[in-house]
Amino acid sequence: MRVKHKKWADPLIVAHPEKLVTNAADWKGKWQQRFSKQQPIHLEVGMGKGQFIIGMAKAHPEINFIGLEIQRTVAAIALKKALGEEDLPNLQLICGDGEDLDTFFEPHEIDRLYLNFSDPWPKKRHAKRRLTYKIFLASYQEILKDQGTVELKTDNMGLFEFSLESMNNFGMHFDGVWLDLHNSAEGEHNVETEYEQKFAAKGQPIYKLTAHFE
Amino acid sequence: MRVKHKKWADPLIVAHPEKLVTNAADWKGKWQQRFSKQQPIHLEVGMGKGQFIIGMAKAHPEINFIGLEIQRTVAAIALKKALGEEDLPNLQLICGDGEDLDTFFEPHEIDRLYLNFSDPWPKKRHAKRRLTYKIFLASYQEILKDQGTVELKTDNMGLFEFSLESMNNFGMHFDGVWLDLHNSAEGEHNVETEYEQKFAAKGQPIYKLTAHFE
Repeated sequence: MRVKHKKWADPLIVAHPEKLVTNAADWKGKWQQRFSKQQPIHLEVGMGKGQFIIGMAKAHPEINFIGLEIQRTVAAIALKKALGEEDLPNLQLICGDGEDLDTFFEPHEIDRLYLNFSDPWPKKRHAKRRLTYKIFLASYQEILKDQGTVELKTDNMGLFEFSLESMNNFGMHFDGVWLDLHNSAEGEHNVETEYEQKFAAKGQPIYKLTAHFE
Repeated sequence: MRVKHKKWADPLIVAHPEKLVTNAADWKGKWQQRFSKQQPIHLEVGMGKGQFIIGMAKAHPEINFIGLEIQRTVAAIALKKALGEEDLPNLQLICGDGEDLDTFFEPHEIDRLYLNFSDPWPKKRHAKRRLTYKIFLASYQEILKDQGTVELKTDNMGLFEFSLESMNNFGMHFDGVWLDLHNSAEGEHNVETEYEQKFAAKGQPIYKLTAHFE
């Protein structure tokens, strides 16, 4: 997603180091210290404007959530939204690059990882940039606990086909596949992203895959 | 598929033992003898009225094809269709039960197996009857060559979701996944079944999965 530069973004980020981290590598292995309770950590790679991770944090106080976003202005929008909520002691945000997960987290520091409506990079020569390419999967496996779970949602057929193949070929075990999430029982407790909300209104299917590493 | 009993079915089957086998167990380990050339054998479990397997036999003279169907009248319809074609020395038909594959074929006798628009058995308590349930997968693995391939096509979302999970959990490696076969490059050399032809005309997606065993 591309957004216009917003003047208020940088000052807001600078004013809220307690909520949004720009130096994530400094917290490697110490993320639990940023939360009020020691409980499992779920990470969203590419949180966008944050609707999903904020909704999850509200719905699941028993989990600590981290939302990561590479674009500074987009991360600031998520920050603004998070600050507008009642206090969420179980939510932290990062402005950082999903390619650097191994510098942000110790092995086994994360319990679950979410990929929501990631850039599909439809051109074949860009396949390595897709967040389910094997190099990314290897980095997820490293930071996740043993048998850690990845949950993927997308509306993009090509990305979902690729992800099914790539995650299968990597040796991941599928826990659930949904080819029309919003019309399934699984959809009942689904927390939507901004994009998903807009897209699903068109009536096109949302795909979901839940899988874990060996 | 249910079809009305046809008076001509049994006499036709009896008259053509050179094309349709009703005692498949007698040919275990000897299927190559029923073909004019020794070449890889592809098996369709549940050929229905035979359009797919006959189309494949015409398109691929370098492969020996076997179509298996449990319902006698349906098998007879496929036989009639096959006899109506120019001579197809690379096609054999079986009237028999897909649950008995291990009694029909020696281990490693088959090179590829097709499952086309199998009964979805949508009720959870019937999951064991789905042709991608693990017990069936184990029987396919037994009769297939090492790294033998299974090709699955269906229009049924529930069966496809189940099959992706089941085949992944069994340890099969996905070679290709298509969520809208007819609008993909893979669809260009697709041979349609009768059912597929009718169904695809409605514009709903056809799913395909190609996977191989370890």
